Amino acid sequence: MTATVHTLRPGREPSIKALMNLTAPGLNAVNHVILDRMQSPVALIPELAGHLIAGGGKRLRPMLTLGCASVLGYEGNRHFKLAAAVEFIHTATLLHDDVVDASGLRRGKVTANALYGNPASVLVGDFLFSRAFELMVEDGSLRVLKILSRASAVIAEGEVAQLTAQRDVSTTEDRYLEIITAKTAALFAAACQIAAVVAERDEKVEEALASYGRYLGIAFQLVDDAIDYVSDAETMGKNAGDDFRDGKITLPVILAYARGNEDEREFWRRAMSGRANGVAELARAGELLRSTNAVADTMARARHYGQRAIDVLAGFPKSPARDALTETVEFAIARAY
Amino acid sequence: MTATVHTLRPGREPSIKALMNLTAPGLNAVNHVILDRMQSPVALIPELAGHLIAGGGKRLRPMLTLGCASVLGYEGNRHFKLAAAVEFIHTATLLHDDVVDASGLRRGKVTANALYGNPASVLVGDFLFSRAFELMVEDGSLRVLKILSRASAVIAEGEVAQLTAQRDVSTTEDRYLEIITAKTAALFAAACQIAAVVAERDEKVEEALASYGRYLGIAFQLVDDAIDYVSDAETMGKNAGDDFRDGKITLPVILAYARGNEDEREFWRRAMSGRANGVAELARAGELLRSTNAVADTMARARHYGQRAIDVLAGFPKSPARDALTETVEFAIARAY
Repeated sequence: MTATVHTLRPGREPSIKALMNLTAPGLNAVNHVILDRMQSPVALIPELAGHLIAGGGKRLRPMLTLGCASVLGYEGNRHFKLAAAVEFIHTATLLHDDVVDASGLRRGKVTANALYGNPASVLVGDFLFSRAFELMVEDGSLRVLKILSRASAVIAEGEVAQLTAQRDVSTTEDRYLEIITAKTAALFAAACQIAAVVAERDEKVEEALASYGRYLGIAFQLVDDAIDYVSDAETMGKNAGDDFRDGKITLPVILAYARGNEDEREFWRRAMSGRANGVAELARAGELLRSTNAVADTMARARHYGQRAIDVLAGFPKSPARDALTETVEFAIARAY
Repeated sequence: MTATVHTLRPGREPSIKALMNLTAPGLNAVNHVILDRMQSPVALIPELAGHLIAGGGKRLRPMLTLGCASVLGYEGNRHFKLAAAVEFIHTATLLHDDVVDASGLRRGKVTANALYGNPASVLVGDFLFSRAFELMVEDGSLRVLKILSRASAVIAEGEVAQLTAQRDVSTTEDRYLEIITAKTAALFAAACQIAAVVAERDEKVEEALASYGRYLGIAFQLVDDAIDYVSDAETMGKNAGDDFRDGKITLPVILAYARGNEDEREFWRRAMSGRANGVAELARAGELLRSTNAVADTMARARHYGQRAIDVLAGFPKSPARDALTETVEFAIARAY
């Protein structure tokens, strides 16, 4: 009963390169805006922001804005500033997330909060967030401002909801889906939707692109949450088992808990509460996740949402841009292996 | 050579009540928006936000928006949402400030971060900040959005600059003024300026009200920084000597350091670096601040800026609203005694 994503080119490894090639010239312009607008007379701001912004981010969300604009045949340049605004919002949430999670590694690098301290990370996050709104105001579209201010509020709600659910093994799959739809997929959706606004297309087109982004974002987060249990720091760019140690309730744990016997459930309660979550417990967690098929089925859920993202795209005329967005979904899912 | 504020009613204690009475009906409407828009299905958000928003704030900044609108004879209701947005931005910065400073008391109450933890305070701050922009988008004025997104970026820059200057006794008075103009006065200025936008007055009027707010904000912060060395927790609503213990470089310290002999400067260096800042050192700091006139002259600087705020108001026709804004300046300065 697992969904299968219908790949464009069976047998070939899906790659983010199609989207990178499609959006390369535009992304240059976006990077120019990003570097220009993260400057400040207060030297610590570009220094800290640069650590994260220059430091290995794929610019996935700005590429989605550019790719969606391309699907619509938009040839203007308004979306460069707006894609930069999206990346600033994303960077601000990463800076604050790392403070919230007390993380030490991100994308294989020491985090900003570990290097510069929590206070600077909180405040530079606030700065980038404000800068994002300044960029949107310069563009002048109230519709874009509405979409991105709403997305920002939803992201924060999702993060607080995640905090509330932390260490609570009774979290349901529905609740988990609500949380990741808010904290991750809302910005993917907004990044795609604003392309329809600059291309001056109607709300149906806006909604279709928002759906593509939302489903891609959900798939992306599901895969991330699976990877946390099957990968190592080198592949993943963060510490393996971070979610386990933080007591973060993700779908693999929810499924393993729901499918476990009473002895196994007690193990998860103790582990997620932080009472027993060392190396030996992480190994046992891995065994339980395998024996209950929890990671494999998390990936099946990811394929389901990935397929929905691809099916939304079918409503747009076939084009290299549409193919690149399709392959991006396949890539998001194939990352796990 | 100290400036004297020309009080409206010599011999009478200046009070915030004139502004409170003037703006009471409007403030009711603002409070309604605030309570309505801090709600969220995620229960922790209104709980934590309510701790600060319901908890003894004077709503000074929203009252300034309302008071300035009143000076201009504006009789619409657009400013209610915008004044609520200003209060949300202020509350978000307070939540983040308390995390940055690791504060335990604010307005005489245990701080949100002490009660709910830093992660929740960071994220609920982000939520309120996003909500503020949603409120502005609903109003629909790009001019207001520009003023408040700019102010938000400037506030964050000021906070980071303050962090950079922390424990550095060589901070100059000019640098200190830049920092407080950004971190405190920018939002006072914006709160006043947006009243001119909703009243559809020209940029000269906008600039005059922004100046009034900026000078009032500078005076307000100078007095706060003086109070930190002369008051107790009960009067002040926060712990006395907090700035001293945190190594926060404020004007009293800058003046005492500049005017001190080498022995005294060494004392300040050790104290501000955190190497020697206990009860005995706080007592000696108090003596040095008195012997160098540092607190008294900080108050003189506050009166100078207060007078400039009052002189800007002289450009507007005499009215009960103008009198209330004038008395607010006198009140801001008289708080210290």
